Amino acid sequence: MFAESNVAPLSREDVEFNLFQVLKSEHLLQRPEFAHHDQATFNAVLEAAEGLSIEKFQNHYRKSDTFEPTFDGERVTTLAETREAIMSFVEAGFLTAGLDEESGGIRLPFSILQACYAFFQAGNISTTAYLFLTASGSNVIGRFGTRWQKETFMKPMLEGRFLGTMCLSEPQAGSGLADIRTRAVREPDGSYLIRGTKMWISAGEHEMSENIVHLVLARVEGAPKGTRGISLFIVPKYRVNDDGSLGARNDVLLAGLNHKMGWRGITNTVLNFGDNGECQGFLVGEENRGLEYMFVMMNEARISVGTGATVLGVAGYRYSSAYSKTRLQGRLAGQKDPGLPQVPIHLHADVRRMLLTQKAYAEGALALCLYTARLVDDVATDPDPEARERAHLMLELLTPVVKAWPSQFCLEANNLAIQVLGGYGYTRDYPVEQYYRDNRLNPIHEGTNGIMALDLLGRKVGMKAGAAIDDFGERVRADIGVAPQSIQAYANKLGVKLDRLIDMTRSLISDGRSAEYLANASYYANAFGHLTIGWMWLRQASAAENLLIRGEGEGAFLRSKVTAMKFFFDTELDLVENWLSIVPRVQEALLSDVDIV
Amino acid sequence: MFAESNVAPLSREDVEFNLFQVLKSEHLLQRPEFAHHDQATFNAVLEAAEGLSIEKFQNHYRKSDTFEPTFDGERVTTLAETREAIMSFVEAGFLTAGLDEESGGIRLPFSILQACYAFFQAGNISTTAYLFLTASGSNVIGRFGTRWQKETFMKPMLEGRFLGTMCLSEPQAGSGLADIRTRAVREPDGSYLIRGTKMWISAGEHEMSENIVHLVLARVEGAPKGTRGISLFIVPKYRVNDDGSLGARNDVLLAGLNHKMGWRGITNTVLNFGDNGECQGFLVGEENRGLEYMFVMMNEARISVGTGATVLGVAGYRYSSAYSKTRLQGRLAGQKDPGLPQVPIHLHADVRRMLLTQKAYAEGALALCLYTARLVDDVATDPDPEARERAHLMLELLTPVVKAWPSQFCLEANNLAIQVLGGYGYTRDYPVEQYYRDNRLNPIHEGTNGIMALDLLGRKVGMKAGAAIDDFGERVRADIGVAPQSIQAYANKLGVKLDRLIDMTRSLISDGRSAEYLANASYYANAFGHLTIGWMWLRQASAAENLLIRGEGEGAFLRSKVTAMKFFFDTELDLVENWLSIVPRVQEALLSDVDIV
Repeated sequence: MFAESNVAPLSREDVEFNLFQVLKSEHLLQRPEFAHHDQATFNAVLEAAEGLSIEKFQNHYRKSDTFEPTFDGERVTTLAETREAIMSFVEAGFLTAGLDEESGGIRLPFSILQACYAFFQAGNISTTAYLFLTASGSNVIGRFGTRWQKETFMKPMLEGRFLGTMCLSEPQAGSGLADIRTRAVREPDGSYLIRGTKMWISAGEHEMSENIVHLVLARVEGAPKGTRGISLFIVPKYRVNDDGSLGARNDVLLAGLNHKMGWRGITNTVLNFGDNGECQGFLVGEENRGLEYMFVMMNEARISVGTGATVLGVAGYRYSSAYSKTRLQGRLAGQKDPGLPQVPIHLHADVRRMLLTQKAYAEGALALCLYTARLVDDVATDPDPEARERAHLMLELLTPVVKAWPSQFCLEANNLAIQVLGGYGYTRDYPVEQYYRDNRLNPIHEGTNGIMALDLLGRKVGMKAGAAIDDFGERVRADIGVAPQSIQAYANKLGVKLDRLIDMTRSLISDGRSAEYLANASYYANAFGHLTIGWMWLRQASAAENLLIRGEGEGAFLRSKVTAMKFFFDTELDLVENWLSIVPRVQEALLSDVDIV
Repeated sequence: MFAESNVAPLSREDVEFNLFQVLKSEHLLQRPEFAHHDQATFNAVLEAAEGLSIEKFQNHYRKSDTFEPTFDGERVTTLAETREAIMSFVEAGFLTAGLDEESGGIRLPFSILQACYAFFQAGNISTTAYLFLTASGSNVIGRFGTRWQKETFMKPMLEGRFLGTMCLSEPQAGSGLADIRTRAVREPDGSYLIRGTKMWISAGEHEMSENIVHLVLARVEGAPKGTRGISLFIVPKYRVNDDGSLGARNDVLLAGLNHKMGWRGITNTVLNFGDNGECQGFLVGEENRGLEYMFVMMNEARISVGTGATVLGVAGYRYSSAYSKTRLQGRLAGQKDPGLPQVPIHLHADVRRMLLTQKAYAEGALALCLYTARLVDDVATDPDPEARERAHLMLELLTPVVKAWPSQFCLEANNLAIQVLGGYGYTRDYPVEQYYRDNRLNPIHEGTNGIMALDLLGRKVGMKAGAAIDDFGERVRADIGVAPQSIQAYANKLGVKLDRLIDMTRSLISDGRSAEYLANASYYANAFGHLTIGWMWLRQASAAENLLIRGEGEGAFLRSKVTAMKFFFDTELDLVENWLSIVPRVQEALLSDVDIV
């Protein structure tokens, strides 16, 4: 029932172009941490990720949407294919590839690993989420847990025997974690009794692993109010005996499955902890530092959300582009003779507009995701301490952007993909409507886009008296300076917008009326995001032009990069100034408490 | 499983504000055609429509999404509630209300009837579609059919005993009707044998009526190629005997149901006509004039699509606004003390931004839909022949706008409604995700938005050497001229944008490079649409200010209208110039035939 396509949802050519031609990832090999690799390894793992994704993840993309997990009151049933995909991922070593050799990994750079993960997200975003949650959870335990916790929980997680969850939200506390109510009471043996309800817990119940390891935020009795009184606990579905064997079921009960518009392949649950007073949990690290531990993972989680949004955008673009080359409809403007044959819709100007807009959004976002992922590597391994610090500031600055911009504009790309397919695109016989439904989650989870905008304007651009925004400006200007002559006019246009962005940002930082401006944070975030994507397109187009000048690479691919850059600059970049002009306006309607009827 | 709300999806206060305070619909009563009505009648039918919609249409909105029609190979099964809604609508007289008394109606003005229909669309857009198709089909037969066709098909349709369909598209011909292949061969008895496949036929098969009356576009043998060789046929599901009783099943077979992202309550079908060579059809009017007959209904059908999109936008706005007043989360900017109580999210500036954007889009669109519907009345009944001609030109000009703008921007409103609800909004427990899925169809059907943009820039603004665009300018300027002093600054801002739009339009009409500009038609349509919606907001805000000055009406409602106008002007109106600046650019990438890789 699903329209077949020979087009892979994510282009390895494009990923490798970004990694090696734009980001020069081969430079990572000069760092001691990665010196045991060579570029052939990088290419090989990317190829392996692509192949496995198509074979084991994409194969049940529609099926996992059609046959949601079910709950009969006792057990949750999921597709066999989902478990098979999870195990194949683990067996291929992708769950541990970023870890040191002593932890069973190969210390793959984060940017390369993130690129591998992008293929799995493109194949099946909800099946991949089981693995991301497990990877994040095991990372938290590995970083902050005790030796016993690592042995008992992290190790089986890395073997895929236990899968993980993150239990932060509650029914009355989603964006506002300061208000979570789940309680923890210390027992004489050092464990804690947990009691409370958690909401939106992905992978919260299923039968695909021997155990489920919940990482749960809760308040210890007497803890300070707000975010400084939150601790982090490991709460297993089944208790674990000292020898590692599984004991009785812990007091964690599935209250119900949430039924979402998309992401239907992964269970999303309401979980009751301690309804019978017997929910055992284990404190991770110290009391009251739970949120801090969780947020250590947050930058990377937000890059993952942005990347997931991006690859759905890319997948829709690639599907609709391929479709447009085979679908015949109408004739070119000016050809009125109905005796002439119909033309592929790829030739209609408005269809080309929709394709190029998708390409500009989705491939621009992909460049940003990989750029940001590379910053994670630079923070960890750049030999120059000052460069590490600069990378850290840039990562902090770009994290809200890489989470929010792709989840907004690649959703719009999916909207256009449907439009290219017309009525067919609106049916469940083609993947583009599922991309659209799946992508709609991304502006919501891991911090809503509204919160990302507040983070960007309210915190990040003002960090260290604007040091991050200054560094941002320097990086963009450096790329403007080295743009090939053939596209210098475009580079200069970007420079004009950049000056305006930096000037306004500086004046906002120094002005005291922050509440007034913060009310317009979303407009600022749009402007910042579009400027950033323009920069990413300049970098891609420069790399492409340089290759074309040298007569290297695949001409059609490279020329399309330049075309998309020009299109984005011609049709979208002026929006930067449009949005910026709104930011300094004091909008009483947003600041008042008058009912909006 | 569906979250209850006491908020009606469409506000009768707002509809009546537009009809009576903005459009002065009571003036219609002075026309002989409507002199038998009074304003109390208008209010009464609106109230009846609202009540019936909530009782019989909204009651199964989610259910009709969850339980799609099924086909067991023989029969299609639909919900009992759907049939009940259809019959209650017919029995209440809404199917015939627009017709003359001699046809069983009460000659309700189109604008009042359209407002009534908006309540049904807001309650359940797919159930309402069965009725709209039947109304359109019976109108076509009533206007162009023979006496026998009216007696045999139209009459039972108006009684709800037969339901109708429109069979235009084919698998290989959707937007390009010139290429339909369905054939008709004249039989000795004057009927025709029809053979071909039709695609996307809503209501194409079900058991809810005694018969189904398909209006089918087909080519008679030897007809000219292209759109001038298309004829229109009545093809019943069951043959009808001379006495009106039903005969044998006609040779129309359901090839399959299409499964869509939304609009799941109405069957959408692939129909095979004449697989066994026995499909009987009856020519409507003359051969080769079929498309012309269909397009007589097209302006009204496009107003309906725009209105459907609009009321889904309104419904999402109203639901999310009500939700935001009860959902507590976080504290106001600056309130860092976690001991303070949480506040309703309605007080957060970014939530207010999302609500006001929805309001600006959806209620701006509603004003446009009702304005355009009024033009239909003016074309038919304005006593001044010149005014009728001007209304006709305006209707032609605004039809692509009223179809496309709401279907684009009220979909975006639904996107924001989901975002206001956060994770809850992404679940099927709240209606906003269904509004979003249902609304996604509207940019596609009854002429895609891309085709609407070509119609607007390529045909409409150039009609009669620009007479329509000139009249448009005069109408907007007239409203600018009478805006109350308190909002004159906003009115003047609209005037500046208007001048720019008209100047550019004039220069495009006189310039010969139409293919180059038509490639940017969608940007032009966006600019034209936003300017038009700004105008609609000026009209609403002026009416509201005048009432406030006189101390009449509901203060909170009226002040919100003024607030929304200011918000739209402050945050959206500058986009007019942004989009206009793109239109004259020659974009080689859109005009070439180079592969977009």
